[in-house]
Order: sequence, then structure tokens, then C-alpha cells
Amino acid sequence: MSRIIVGVMGPGEGARAEDRACAEELGGLIAREGWVLLTGGRDAGVMAAAARGARRAGGLTLGILPGDDAVGASPDVDIAIVTGLGQARNNVNVLTSRVVIACGLGAGTAAEVALALKAGRPVVLLRASDTAWAFFRELGGERVRCATEAREAIALARALLAHG
Amino acid sequence: MSRIIVGVMGPGEGARAEDRACAEELGGLIAREGWVLLTGGRDAGVMAAAARGARRAGGLTLGILPGDDAVGASPDVDIAIVTGLGQARNNVNVLTSRVVIACGLGAGTAAEVALALKAGRPVVLLRASDTAWAFFRELGGERVRCATEAREAIALARALLAHG
Amino acid sequence: MSRIIVGVMGPGEGARAEDRACAEELGGLIAREGWVLLTGGRDAGVMAAAARGARRAGGLTLGILPGDDAVGASPDVDIAIVTGLGQARNNVNVLTSRVVIACGLGAGTAAEVALALKAGRPVVLLRASDTAWAFFRELGGERVRCATEAREAIALARALLAHG
Amino acid sequence: MSRIIVGVMGPGEGARAEDRACAEELGGLIAREGWVLLTGGRDAGVMAAAARGARRAGGLTLGILPGDDAVGASPDVDIAIVTGLGQARNNVNVLTSRVVIACGLGAGTAAEVALALKAGRPVVLLRASDTAWAFFRELGGERVRCATEAREAIALARALLAHG
Repeated sequence: MSRIIVGVMGPGEGARAEDRACAEELGGLIAREGWVLLTGGRDAGVMAAAARGARRAGGLTLGILPGDDAVGASPDVDIAIVTGLGQARNNVNVLTSRVVIACGLGAGTAAEVALALKAGRPVVLLRASDTAWAFFRELGGERVRCATEAREAIALARALLAHG
Repeated sequence: MSRIIVGVMGPGEGARAEDRACAEELGGLIAREGWVLLTGGRDAGVMAAAARGARRAGGLTLGILPGDDAVGASPDVDIAIVTGLGQARNNVNVLTSRVVIACGLGAGTAAEVALALKAGRPVVLLRASDTAWAFFRELGGERVRCATEAREAIALARALLAHG
Repeated sequence: MSRIIVGVMGPGEGARAEDRACAEELGGLIAREGWVLLTGGRDAGVMAAAARGARRAGGLTLGILPGDDAVGASPDVDIAIVTGLGQARNNVNVLTSRVVIACGLGAGTAAEVALALKAGRPVVLLRASDTAWAFFRELGGERVRCATEAREAIALARALLAHG
Repeated sequence: MSRIIVGVMGPGEGARAEDRACAEELGGLIAREGWVLLTGGRDAGVMAAAARGARRAGGLTLGILPGDDAVGASPDVDIAIVTGLGQARNNVNVLTSRVVIACGLGAGTAAEVALALKAGRPVVLLRASDTAWAFFRELGGERVRCATEAREAIALARALLAHG
């Protein structure tokens, strides 16, 4: 039927170098699993890095853009969904993803993790702070998992897809 | 950069047989142009027919679903975007499409044509009634074109993409 | 329970003088019925005129704004709903209105009329062109009514609220 | 111009008795300040309690509903905004509120707090757990305040409105 879509969420402009590196690796691994990568679509931070990694590995990349046009989209997005919804598009991101992987945490990403839990989508927090992990574990219980590197996040996603 | 997306809009459950046949042909032609087909994603009427035509021709199909999950999606949708937005997803449909082709006209499709004109997206009305053609021409001027068969709609879309 | 909300839709910047005058009268009549007036909220055209009329008559006015903040809201809007949804907010306008009155027709208003019909909300077209009336009557049947002046539109709305 | 709107967010069905009591007190205090109360609108938990408190104190109450109709709205909502957006309506809640007060924390409320911070709206966490306070303080810095009772939250909101 339809293809498996896995979302990688994370900060744009303020993303840390190590989160961008991790996101690029994640993108490549998602492509190699045969999954479609979903991001927030903009040419910044974790979104851009994940899309670059997936495209280099030959994967298909989907970007869910907040604005009214595709200006500012990452050049590595194959399918640009232009929502015009602003941050309300975050709910589209998580509903469309079978698993959500958060790589770094700004306010937008925190909203996506919370919306994913609200919608019953499983979440993997990659390299999260102790505070973030404690908070989301309190909020989401078993639906939230923790990983310290990209390969571990992919293994968790594979297990979640097999059981969910 | 990102791939060209062309939307085919039309009624679901109430679609006429001739509009479904036309939509299936349209889907196939869109795939052969190398464009990505966008529809409202549900397994009904014009949406389902267009997706079937595109997939049979080896194309990539995108479905923008109104509900909170992918239940009710056409089996021929490759990429299911789960919006949870109800009919507000119609604006996502038109913003994401470089050209909108309407094949039959119910209330939802009429809203999409009007939103496309509002957003500056060109529209091709396929097999529209004289009343619909007169109304949308009054509303959208040169941005609205009329076609009587699928090949003609594709030729118009090709020209619109070349100049827009 | 909750108060009755009646929507007045119409063009912003491009509105005709006679549609603005009619909208201002409509706003006043809606306030005198004890209904809450809903508009698209911006300080332009039919939206601004209807809000002005309702406020002068002592009514409560609700504006459903497209942007991320209240900049550009009509000064006569009491309750500014900031949606950040762009034109997707048109569906919020019609779902929230018990009756939709269209006063002049641009692309945005046409989308609202079509979305209202899709959602089963009754519509009164005020001073519509013959073409618009023919089109929406074809689309919505008995759910669409026609009026030539503000008082007639209010009488129709009163009857629709009593029976719906 | 338009009236000051203050949002009270919190869990629906799973709300704790002490959070409901606190929300009811908050609603009353908001009404006495002359502010309009905004909630998620449903007849459950913190939303229903806050609306009840505000209405009993003679205030105006606004409910931003997720569904396609007003079924399930709290009977104490004066103005029912029917969004049809599901959880994407959470962004409308925070954009429309000048200050957001969170009273108890489920996944939906956590998403609203994060979206408020993303949009630059100040947030008061009322009776939050140490974990939640630590997390949102890490995320939002000075934009997030903490209160242990309703009167303190109102005093903070008053100060935030005076300076913002």
C-alpha cells in the first residue's frame, strides 16, 4: 500500500553541530531501510541535514513546509508539501509519521513530540538532555524511547514498526 | 530541486462514471510526464481513479487525507499525508500543486478551485458545465482554462508550467 | 448555551462601495437580532464594514484572522481569533457560522461559500451576479438562497435558524 | 480595540480534581479582571471548570473546539469556535491568547505550552511538577513563569500584560 514514513524533527537555525551530524546520519539510515524521510522541510538545521543524508543515500524525502510557497525549502526535499499553516503544520508532521525521531529539542520540536504522544505515535528521543527525557517519559510512558546514536534510534524505530 | 506536483481534484462518492474514467486517464498521463500526482487521497471517485491511473503508469502518487489516520486512503496512494484538518486540507492541496486540474465539480472541488485562484495557482477545468466555466472565468480570468478531454488538460498544464 | 454566530463574508481590498454599504447595514441588523457577527477580521472591505456596523449597533464582533498576529485587524473586532492558518482559516469561518451571508464575491468568498455547502451550513448570497447565483444553486440546491438587500438576507437567516 | 484574551489550558478527561478546582477559580478571576477566557472548549476537565468559573463571575468565554461541530462543547462556552482542525487547533489557542496559563499537564497541554513559547507568548505554569518546570524553563527561559495558586498566576499575567 502506501510507503512507511519516518519523521525526523529538530531545530532549524539554532541546531547544534552534533545534532546536524546525527540527523544527516539518520537520514541516510532511513533511506537504506527503504522508508520515506519526513522533515519540516526548511533549508536549516536538523531538517536540512536529515534531507541531505537521505537523498545522498538514494532515499525519497518529504518536506512539510509552514509557509504559503516553497521558498526556503531544503534543496534535498523531493516532495515539498506547502501547507500555509505555520506551526499548525507540526500536527501534520506527526500524524503523517509512523515513528517520530527527535534530534535536538527547541520549542517547535517539543511541540511535535507532545503532539506525537497525543496522537499515539511512538517517539524516539535522540541525544536528549536528562531533563527532556524525564519530562517526556513522565508524559508519554512507554511510548517514548531514548537513544544516544543514530543506529540505535533506527533499531528502535524498526522494532516499533514491527510491533505497532 | 523538488519534483513537479500536479493536483487532480474532483468529487468522491458522488463522482460520475465519465469523470472517473477521465481522471484515470489523467493520472496515467501525469505519470508519463514525470510529474507527481496529488489527490485528496481517499478511496473514492475521482481521487481513487486518478491515483489508480498514475500508479499503473509507474508514477508516484501523493494523497492529502482529511482525517486523523490513513484509514480510507486509496490503495494506490504511495505517500499518504495525514493532515487531521478536515476540509481545511483543501488549501494544502492547492498550495502544494503547481497546476490544479478539476475533473467534475462538487462543493469540495469548487472550494479547491476558488482557493487555487486565491493563491495564484493556475486551474484547468475539465469537462466543466457551462455554468461552472462562466462562474470561474468571471472569478479567475486568464488563470482558468477549459479542456474537454484529458490530453488537452495535460497540454495546457505543460504550457502553464513552462510559462509560470 | 453558546450564542448564535452569523458570518458575513466578502472581498477585502477589492470590495465594491455598494457591497461595503450593504455589509455595514448587515452588521447592524445582525447586532440588533442579538447574534454575534463573524468576519474574516481584517481592516478591509466587507469585513471591516460589517464589523463597524455591528459595533455601532452595540453588537459583539468576532474576527477570524489569517495571520500569526492581530496586526491588520479591523478596529471594530472585539474578539480577534489569531489562526496563523492563511486561507485554511476560511473553513473555520464557515464551520463556526450557523448561517453564512456572502456580500460580494472574490475568490476567497467563493471558497467560503463552497466550504459552507460542503459542511452543510446554509448560505445567503446577497446581490450576487446571475452567474454566481446559477453556479451555487447548481452546487448547493435549496441550501443556497438569494437576497437583494440586507433586510431580506436577515429575514432569510432568521427563517433558516428557526428551521435548522 | 479588541479585548484581552487569556488562555487556560489543561487536561480534559484525565484532569485531577485539584487542577479542576484551580481552573474554576482561575476562570472567575479572569472574568473579574475583565479579560475574555479562552479554553479548548470541550465539556471536560480543566476546560469545563475554567469556563464554569468565568461564566459564574459574569465573564465572556471562548471555546476553540477541535471537531467539525459544537457537539461536546462545554455549556459554559459563550462563543464556540468550530475549527475542524483536531489538535492543530492548539496553535490557534496559543496565538489567540495574550498569556497562556497551564493548569495540569497532559500531552495536549504540553504541546500548547511549547507552541506558545515558539510563538513568543508568555506562559504561566500553575502547580507544575518539578520535572515540567525544569523542562519548560530550559526551553523557554524567562518567558515561562511558575505559580502555585490561581491568584499568583493572575498577578503574573497582569504583570506580563502590562510589560508585553
